[in-house]
Amino acid sequence: MKLYEKLAEEIEDLIRKGVYRHGDRLQSVRQASQQRKVSITTVLRAYLLLESRGLIASRPQSGYFVHLPGAADGARADRMAPSHPIAISSSVDVSRLVLSTLRSISDNHAVPLGSPYPDPSLFPFDKLNRYAYVAGRRKERLDLKDALPPGHPDLVRQIARRYLEKGMAVDPGEIIITVGATEAINICLQAVARPGDTIAVESPTFYAMLHAIERMGMKAIEISTHPDLGIDIAALADIARTQPIAACMVMPNFQNPMGFRMPDERKRELVAYATQADMPIIENGVYNELHYSREAPSTLKSYDTRGLVLHCSSFSKSLTSAYRIGWALPGRYRDQVEKLKFLNTLTTPALPQMAIAEFLARDGYDRHLRRLRAAYAQQARLMRSLVARFFPAGTRTSHPAGGYVLWVELPAGLDGMHLYQLALQRGITIGPGYMFSISNNYPNFIRLNYSSPWSAEIERAVITVGRLAADCLR
Amino acid sequence: MKLYEKLAEEIEDLIRKGVYRHGDRLQSVRQASQQRKVSITTVLRAYLLLESRGLIASRPQSGYFVHLPGAADGARADRMAPSHPIAISSSVDVSRLVLSTLRSISDNHAVPLGSPYPDPSLFPFDKLNRYAYVAGRRKERLDLKDALPPGHPDLVRQIARRYLEKGMAVDPGEIIITVGATEAINICLQAVARPGDTIAVESPTFYAMLHAIERMGMKAIEISTHPDLGIDIAALADIARTQPIAACMVMPNFQNPMGFRMPDERKRELVAYATQADMPIIENGVYNELHYSREAPSTLKSYDTRGLVLHCSSFSKSLTSAYRIGWALPGRYRDQVEKLKFLNTLTTPALPQMAIAEFLARDGYDRHLRRLRAAYAQQARLMRSLVARFFPAGTRTSHPAGGYVLWVELPAGLDGMHLYQLALQRGITIGPGYMFSISNNYPNFIRLNYSSPWSAEIERAVITVGRLAADCLR
Repeated sequence: MKLYEKLAEEIEDLIRKGVYRHGDRLQSVRQASQQRKVSITTVLRAYLLLESRGLIASRPQSGYFVHLPGAADGARADRMAPSHPIAISSSVDVSRLVLSTLRSISDNHAVPLGSPYPDPSLFPFDKLNRYAYVAGRRKERLDLKDALPPGHPDLVRQIARRYLEKGMAVDPGEIIITVGATEAINICLQAVARPGDTIAVESPTFYAMLHAIERMGMKAIEISTHPDLGIDIAALADIARTQPIAACMVMPNFQNPMGFRMPDERKRELVAYATQADMPIIENGVYNELHYSREAPSTLKSYDTRGLVLHCSSFSKSLTSAYRIGWALPGRYRDQVEKLKFLNTLTTPALPQMAIAEFLARDGYDRHLRRLRAAYAQQARLMRSLVARFFPAGTRTSHPAGGYVLWVELPAGLDGMHLYQLALQRGITIGPGYMFSISNNYPNFIRLNYSSPWSAEIERAVITVGRLAADCLR
Repeated sequence: MKLYEKLAEEIEDLIRKGVYRHGDRLQSVRQASQQRKVSITTVLRAYLLLESRGLIASRPQSGYFVHLPGAADGARADRMAPSHPIAISSSVDVSRLVLSTLRSISDNHAVPLGSPYPDPSLFPFDKLNRYAYVAGRRKERLDLKDALPPGHPDLVRQIARRYLEKGMAVDPGEIIITVGATEAINICLQAVARPGDTIAVESPTFYAMLHAIERMGMKAIEISTHPDLGIDIAALADIARTQPIAACMVMPNFQNPMGFRMPDERKRELVAYATQADMPIIENGVYNELHYSREAPSTLKSYDTRGLVLHCSSFSKSLTSAYRIGWALPGRYRDQVEKLKFLNTLTTPALPQMAIAEFLARDGYDRHLRRLRAAYAQQARLMRSLVARFFPAGTRTSHPAGGYVLWVELPAGLDGMHLYQLALQRGITIGPGYMFSISNNYPNFIRLNYSSPWSAEIERAVITVGRLAADCLR
């Protein structure tokens, strides 16, 4: 461990133990250098590392301050407030507009700040492609049978091994391989609820969750959600007392669009509530590998003793989105989910499964992920600081603890969809806030993607969007 | 054209013009050789070719007879009768048993007479695998966007071109690429009907159609179906008069399990009926390329002027099942189907689409298909003659005009599921008849797959099944 990493760890310990509290100002770089007898560069690096982990924040001209997600700082002007959505259960019909937005994002050669997908340039696709090719050559008789549900045994084993190594006991027999997390979420939802049922979601919520609800002709109800702590469990319980809620869909780690990491205690509470209410929870964990801090986040699944959590994930955000390989750990609904997978798409193609299994077995997935996380953490910092500098006064942003998207609240009255159209005319896409709600609770929000390696082009694009937003206010 | 092919064509003309009628005995090989002044081998080859096309049939010790599918020969003991299923609309729950049967078929190293999948040894997979690899190398930034619905433009263009070349005018903009025909059928059904609705199907019906109905919580009703002419349109109309039928799902060409090719006139009639009744038809065309006779079969879609036919197909039976690439031509439901594709699995992976497009553009798909058709036609003949020789008296078989499965009716009282289990103990799988009906209308039927290149092992397996069946009757 390098000296600056050691220093960062000491400070992190002090923060975690409560010696430093939220809002406390850290020693200046010079002071710390003198007191600890290390170079200024070392201190600076340690502070940057802590900042990239989301534990401290710099304020221009003022130095570094401890930043604890979820601490009571809602009063500060630059902090987002918890959401208070209109809590009416409604049928969902948002996908057509989202599809057309996504298509406009991909159609032209725009700067993809609106893209929901990770930039693939950091993914080891050449290696995977070679493994898939070799797997295809090896098989004399390649047919469907190799991948009948639950999935290819090599990949199932590797996924189970990975969970086990990270401390989560998983029965390989529970895993069902799917066509991306999209299919996993769809069939898990279909296993626990019926058309017409109401599903509780975070607010804002990742639109893919809304699409799953729409696909089945179910209804959604948005629950108040804290930008750092996640879904409000008391609010969920209140609503469930007044109307039947068939299931709850959440993204406790690095939620899209807010990027929060729900604290362990809250995760435990949510699972305890679900257990007591006998309410299945669909947990979308596609960003779990993209944490900025050292330790991997826990899952709701790891607190579940009753098989009520249906955990869904994929390799699309962490390894490759080209193969569309995801999986479900459906708890007590396992057999039903396996059957629905079979009915929905029969099998998931075998070669991509074999290629990923080979990569996991041989190639240091962890090394790849460390590079990816470091890059995203750094890009998060750059994106936030650019927005802070170039967006209109009154703009607030999320504090992502992982993933690759930033949720931006523009001053009230500014229309995110209008801004989207203005930006598109300049060859830039952004993610308009309407996509994240069934009742347009976020008209003045946008989502920005920072998965692309930083470049002058991206910097110019963010500045342009900020200026367009400022123009709208005039 | 070789001499024997020319002779076969002349005889086929005479049959089609009605000079030779169903049941007529052809000249003996010797007579024909003398009269036409060609060698005995030439006549024999011509007769074998006609037999493989399903136009004539040999009877031991008696010579060759004209065999016209659909001619009034139901009275003959070795002909299958049209089905008369119990016409009660029922909810569907057959998939779990089918999945476990399919898994037992794939789990062990059994002789796969029960497999629903084509043997991949005749497929040009090495070439496709190479194209996929090269496509993966070429793309600097490989991500999801390339394949957002409707699908990869290169593949869409190739599919449209192929239809056009075969005389069916297709708007490329109508095509939606899917994860196999399974997804195409699922989302087409979801586009035209709702949970609780009743769907009319052939009887027996391909179980994948029943699974699509089960997946959506719909009901099915089985319609009387002729083993050579297809679904009974009058029976369908009768039932639709007494209860609402939301849609009809059929496989007019080389139906699984019966293998018939619905005559053009009947196809036209079915579409006319659907138009008049405003009833959407989902047409499963996955075997369309596997015709034994020279001309490709027509589709229901080609007779449809109102956009009521949702045509589904895939490359899984004709090129490779490893990639799971299918498509839909959903007529007037196109936008709804595109949206459902997006909701169901987001995108279909791009590389397999690009590999298949490359193959279609460069490699003589038609040459490959000619080889495949000739092999299946020959294997059909061998399978039928083996069953005729080694199965108990009273056994009847279908007369497949394409595809690679034979439908076998065992003497009444013989239990296909019991036979399945006995065969499994000997390392042989067969497809039990229960899979093809919602109310077990075919307990004494089995389906045999003849897609594997003929071998002594397969021959022994068929003979063994025949003997086991005979033992059951004792």
